[in-house]
Amino acid sequence: MTHERLEDQVRFILEVDRLKEVFRQTLCTQSRRAENDAEHSWHLCLAVIVLAEYANRPRLDVLRVLKMLIIHDLVEIDAGDTFAYDTARMADQHEREARAADRIFGLLPGDQCAEFRGLWDEFEERATPEARFAAAIDRFQPVLLNCSTQGAAWRRHGVTADRVLARNSQIAEGSAELWAKAAAMIQKAVDSGDLDPAA
Amino acid sequence: MTHERLEDQVRFILEVDRLKEVFRQTLCTQSRRAENDAEHSWHLCLAVIVLAEYANRPRLDVLRVLKMLIIHDLVEIDAGDTFAYDTARMADQHEREARAADRIFGLLPGDQCAEFRGLWDEFEERATPEARFAAAIDRFQPVLLNCSTQGAAWRRHGVTADRVLARNSQIAEGSAELWAKAAAMIQKAVDSGDLDPAA
Repeated sequence: MTHERLEDQVRFILEVDRLKEVFRQTLCTQSRRAENDAEHSWHLCLAVIVLAEYANRPRLDVLRVLKMLIIHDLVEIDAGDTFAYDTARMADQHEREARAADRIFGLLPGDQCAEFRGLWDEFEERATPEARFAAAIDRFQPVLLNCSTQGAAWRRHGVTADRVLARNSQIAEGSAELWAKAAAMIQKAVDSGDLDPAA
Repeated sequence: MTHERLEDQVRFILEVDRLKEVFRQTLCTQSRRAENDAEHSWHLCLAVIVLAEYANRPRLDVLRVLKMLIIHDLVEIDAGDTFAYDTARMADQHEREARAADRIFGLLPGDQCAEFRGLWDEFEERATPEARFAAAIDRFQPVLLNCSTQGAAWRRHGVTADRVLARNSQIAEGSAELWAKAAAMIQKAVDSGDLDPAA
């Protein structure tokens, strides 16, 4: 029994190696190549252990936040990355990702499949303080990278400051302080000409 | 004060973006390109939340294990990746990495610098059950990837099974069950001709 269980777990760990090949619109600061979902997920985890003190909810369950962020993008192995400002593709995003969640988490033993699916649903619904902080970090990190690469991803897609502010204001649900910081950085990008103020 | 603290934390998060450009000898299973340290660190975190039940020590502090693995390779931003079978470069590895730890963790506010340096030292010394399990996962994952890429990294460097077994037997300090699994996979690689039995 343990043998078969461990076999399934190892197969899952190898299957999700594919996350390293799912590329995002955001650029890495050094090479300026597209960031992939695996390294993005690591960067979010790193940001959580540095910035947890700014969560709106004190005494956050940081382990739960990390678990959500470790698995939050696995669905993109099947569903692909949906750019945050691509409203056409965003229409059926949740449906595509829910199908992917069924397949990918379904590779795990039943108890872990239920746990991981529960964490992913919690993250998607922003149903708890932990999910709201995880979602805040998932938006805060791309703002940092975009502001450090002269707004390259925003400019390539003609995204304007009003849309960036509207999308990222959700950071405030998880952390008022990080939202204040992000808003200041976005304003600085407008002031320096890296981000167009409006369409 | 909070403002300056957050500035330092953001600067640290952006500095360690460089981890995405530190490449390892191990190959990703899909594209067969070299894996980088950031995506490796994510993959270890994922493996921990799937495999924690196999730790020798029951009731492991999983949050502590994850924190160690999120930061364990940051020193390689300055010190570079040292291939596990490169005995020449391994001679001064710890000295190079300790200097890197001083600089990189030194970017953080004092309390977090101390916390992260403590976690890194704990990991390096394998001083606790958490550190021994983290170190076990840091060896188990490359075995999985190497066995799934026809032993490409081993073969490129002429590494033989006796050395692979000697190095990875340390997995047993963190998890007897994962070591049994790794040893069986290594034997399978020998049987299929992906790994030479001995020099």
